[in-house]
Amino acid sequence: MSIFVIKKMKRNFSISGMPDFSPFEKRRREYILSKVKEQFLLFGFSSIQTASMTKSTSSYGEAADKLIFNILKSGNYFTKLKENYNNRETGSSDLLNLKDIDFTSLISDKSLRYDLTIPFAKYVAEHQSEITFPFKRYEIGSVWRADRPQKGRLREFTQCDADIIGDSSLWLEVDLLDLMNSIFRSLGLNDLLIKINNRKILEGIWIEGKGSSVGSFSSFCIIIDKIDKIGIERVGELLLDAGYQEDFIQMMQELFLFEGSFLDKKEYLLGKINQDNQILLKGLDELSFVIGKSSSVNNLIFDLSLARGLDYYTGAIFEVVSYGSANSLAGGGRYDNLTEKYDLRGVSGVGVSFGLDRLYLEMDELNLFDDKINNNLDVLFINFGEKESIVSQSYISELRSCGKSAELYPSNLKISKQMSYADKRGAKFVVIIGEEEINLELLTVKNMNTGKQDRLSMLEFIKLLNHEE
Amino acid sequence: MSIFVIKKMKRNFSISGMPDFSPFEKRRREYILSKVKEQFLLFGFSSIQTASMTKSTSSYGEAADKLIFNILKSGNYFTKLKENYNNRETGSSDLLNLKDIDFTSLISDKSLRYDLTIPFAKYVAEHQSEITFPFKRYEIGSVWRADRPQKGRLREFTQCDADIIGDSSLWLEVDLLDLMNSIFRSLGLNDLLIKINNRKILEGIWIEGKGSSVGSFSSFCIIIDKIDKIGIERVGELLLDAGYQEDFIQMMQELFLFEGSFLDKKEYLLGKINQDNQILLKGLDELSFVIGKSSSVNNLIFDLSLARGLDYYTGAIFEVVSYGSANSLAGGGRYDNLTEKYDLRGVSGVGVSFGLDRLYLEMDELNLFDDKINNNLDVLFINFGEKESIVSQSYISELRSCGKSAELYPSNLKISKQMSYADKRGAKFVVIIGEEEINLELLTVKNMNTGKQDRLSMLEFIKLLNHEE
Repeated sequence: MSIFVIKKMKRNFSISGMPDFSPFEKRRREYILSKVKEQFLLFGFSSIQTASMTKSTSSYGEAADKLIFNILKSGNYFTKLKENYNNRETGSSDLLNLKDIDFTSLISDKSLRYDLTIPFAKYVAEHQSEITFPFKRYEIGSVWRADRPQKGRLREFTQCDADIIGDSSLWLEVDLLDLMNSIFRSLGLNDLLIKINNRKILEGIWIEGKGSSVGSFSSFCIIIDKIDKIGIERVGELLLDAGYQEDFIQMMQELFLFEGSFLDKKEYLLGKINQDNQILLKGLDELSFVIGKSSSVNNLIFDLSLARGLDYYTGAIFEVVSYGSANSLAGGGRYDNLTEKYDLRGVSGVGVSFGLDRLYLEMDELNLFDDKINNNLDVLFINFGEKESIVSQSYISELRSCGKSAELYPSNLKISKQMSYADKRGAKFVVIIGEEEINLELLTVKNMNTGKQDRLSMLEFIKLLNHEE
Repeated sequence: MSIFVIKKMKRNFSISGMPDFSPFEKRRREYILSKVKEQFLLFGFSSIQTASMTKSTSSYGEAADKLIFNILKSGNYFTKLKENYNNRETGSSDLLNLKDIDFTSLISDKSLRYDLTIPFAKYVAEHQSEITFPFKRYEIGSVWRADRPQKGRLREFTQCDADIIGDSSLWLEVDLLDLMNSIFRSLGLNDLLIKINNRKILEGIWIEGKGSSVGSFSSFCIIIDKIDKIGIERVGELLLDAGYQEDFIQMMQELFLFEGSFLDKKEYLLGKINQDNQILLKGLDELSFVIGKSSSVNNLIFDLSLARGLDYYTGAIFEVVSYGSANSLAGGGRYDNLTEKYDLRGVSGVGVSFGLDRLYLEMDELNLFDDKINNNLDVLFINFGEKESIVSQSYISELRSCGKSAELYPSNLKISKQMSYADKRGAKFVVIIGEEEINLELLTVKNMNTGKQDRLSMLEFIKLLNHEE
């Protein structure tokens, strides 16, 4: 091999972080989705489909809002905007003094959904009169984030969400933990850790540290949430910057480092914290119930440092992490006020979200995809010309109506070229219909796996195909 | 009933033309998709998934380009834009003199896909070295058009496309007609008309009428394409405005009105047109082959007035129309240069596109959805409290692992409320586990269809459920 190979530049017309998926990848993705969907249905969830766009509103907190893709208004939006400004006293040059965010609100009123949770809240509020509560819905769909693309982090990706809204029973948390385990088991993903915590416990701890001028509980969670990325020391520094006392920070770090069972941790925590801290006690009670009733105790771990970034969680929070890759594959939690911004109050819900693209990466790394997933054509008919093709086409119709995928090679090319196509397509059988076969009303059938070739009647061939399954 | 009912205003948080779909609608949509997908696979197509966004480029012609949803650049795009303009001599007020289209190109470089065909062309060009040609792909996905919403015309809708690229054999047209028929048959849609024409025939006719200063062939097709909406008279006027001679227009109108079989029409056409018109003869030859080989002759009609608006068609074009509603349910055709703009030349393809939302409307109007589609929960367990729920939860796990959907009502509410939930969910069975059932290790099972109630062991219940299917 020469090292002076001139590499042909591959033209790339795609947008980074927004991949296309080949038939090979798509079949694997559909395999995963079929497993996920099967469990969603067994657990009693029904699917909805929400629109990809929503009216522009701030929903996720400042950090997430920056990642929203905004849609430009249609038509002569810019001309109209200038006209509006010209009608005002200050004149249109004012436009040029606007900040990005204010300018955006003038030329865009819609955005792509950032997740499936807020669209779900919108759906529930809008359809509350038709919905039977508790409402168990799942949704599988694309979401978009204007993030910096990297491995395992795309700008368009697929989420699989299951939520129950309209009931605050902790049995729902128990069932969701079961659901997660069932899905991972059905995919062959066994080396997983389910981390669980409760926002009420974190809030109880935060109350302990609340001195004169520390940040909000929400900003406290955002700091804690960074622990996996930046480490416990750096989190301590951030808390110090935010105004928390050193002894409080030290206590927190001790709590995070303490190892043991749920009961050990609970006892340790109660030894450090004011016994009248009602919200903390409530959080511990809830967690006791969920952990006590869960059948997935062997891989469930109470992780006090689990905070999750999103604003809306109010109770249990959980996250599933792969032992091997340390990738986060799923996460979720309890929220009490999600539909509030759509004028529907007092509705509690709990949900979990699986990342299809993460699951794919994980399964690919662990070699969990069966080769069978790639078989996608039962029979290819060789094209010998018009007369033979007419006969072939009628056999093909018959095979399809028996549930076998079949096609005619479209052109009368060299047989070696047609066979190579059959091979690359992963066809199970190749059928040859020539003059003789037409006269005898038989098919010459080649098994592409064994190389064996036979003359069969159509009836015999269909039997053979059925036997193959 | 009082007529003075104060109607509670339904708050609407959605964007018009971009609907959400309820579990009821979603199950019906998935039913349609499963049928479509089944036939795609039987015909040998493999699925790909393309990104929802593409780099902004003009692809569809002026009329369609107006309907593209553009995505705003992220970050401080406006600040950066002003800085760029400030660096230039003319100053930033120049910005305000820009036309909408030019301003858009500065603040947006991505757009949502308008159809699945152009992303397919991009995919093929980008992956040409890995693809086995002829490449048979299907894709099912959302597309977006900034259109004025009306019945049957949404701004976000789902297309189901099947294309074969890399072969110019007319057998592919024959097979696609078969595919369309198979899909419609499997959905129970029988009263359909498949209109077929060939762009080469239209081009041959256009050449006849080409006088001094008439428009392009493309603009000719756009005028002809309007015939269903505005009628033959008005199309004549538009052609006159475009510079075509009156006798040519009269001949066209006669051609459009002439009724008869393909052979009758062919003869009539050849009597009117210059016998040396090679492109017209080529078009007629192609059409003869396709119609001659097609097994769907009984609902296939040669319609000279079928033009289809999109620029890229070069051969056969077809459209499926419902007799009853006159709705267009599918359409497609042959294109020879689709991948050219992505630097891949000389690749011919042919494809068909089904509109899921149109199919849904049509099937709904004709009452073709089976009620069975709505059954979605096998068993609901009544919640009598913690102790009973623990036992129920383990039965539920067992049922799910036998492939039965089951759930526990999350809270210990009045039994009537729980029964009403079971009813609304369409549960087939309700199971009651009380003190007695726990002691006897039995389940009290109520068949929600018959109202019959029995005490069964778990084994007997599973047998019953399997028998029910």
